[in-house]
Amino acid sequence: MSKYTMFGQLKAHPGKRDELAKLMLESADTLEGMEGCIFYIINESVDDPDVLWIMELWENAEAHAASLKNERVLAVIQRCRPLIAGVSGVPVRPIGGKGL
Amino acid sequence: MSKYTMFGQLKAHPGKRDELAKLMLESADTLEGMEGCIFYIINESVDDPDVLWIMELWENAEAHAASLKNERVLAVIQRCRPLIAGVSGVPVRPIGGKGL
Repeated sequence: MSKYTMFGQLKAHPGKRDELAKLMLESADTLEGMEGCIFYIINESVDDPDVLWIMELWENAEAHAASLKNERVLAVIQRCRPLIAGVSGVPVRPIGGKGL
Repeated sequence: MSKYTMFGQLKAHPGKRDELAKLMLESADTLEGMEGCIFYIINESVDDPDVLWIMELWENAEAHAASLKNERVLAVIQRCRPLIAGVSGVPVRPIGGKGL
């Protein structure tokens, strides 16, 4: 199966990015031991003070989909939801490179 | 020093993405042994047939800047240039997560 990448945007409600980032970092802790997650890097946008960008690499799309059914992940999503104004992303498909 | 992430877009001239991707994959080979480059993953855009997105993690901004002065990297850039219509990206700063 092919590796799976995501570049997803979380837009916080105005002024709520730091709080959202804190919760998302806990989410990353949750993923630390999760099978199939190679990296899950949380970035701040440099030019939008309310935006986080998440850079993810998974062993395959199935591992990513499975993580979204994990109870601990669902609990983090639930806690983040009130802080989030919008979710979007850049649809991509990895084709190669170092670290893939 | 802080880790450094990039999410950069290369837009090929119409119909030239596959050719550009091939050259970029050679560029990734060049980076394989390069100090400070943790990953350099080349992605196809799912919704724009002319676009590649490069997802990068470096030990620090200096390592990234140094790579752009490397002769082999410069040679790849030179070969890619005629195929590229535009370069842009999402300015981000990593704050944490798995794999960082």
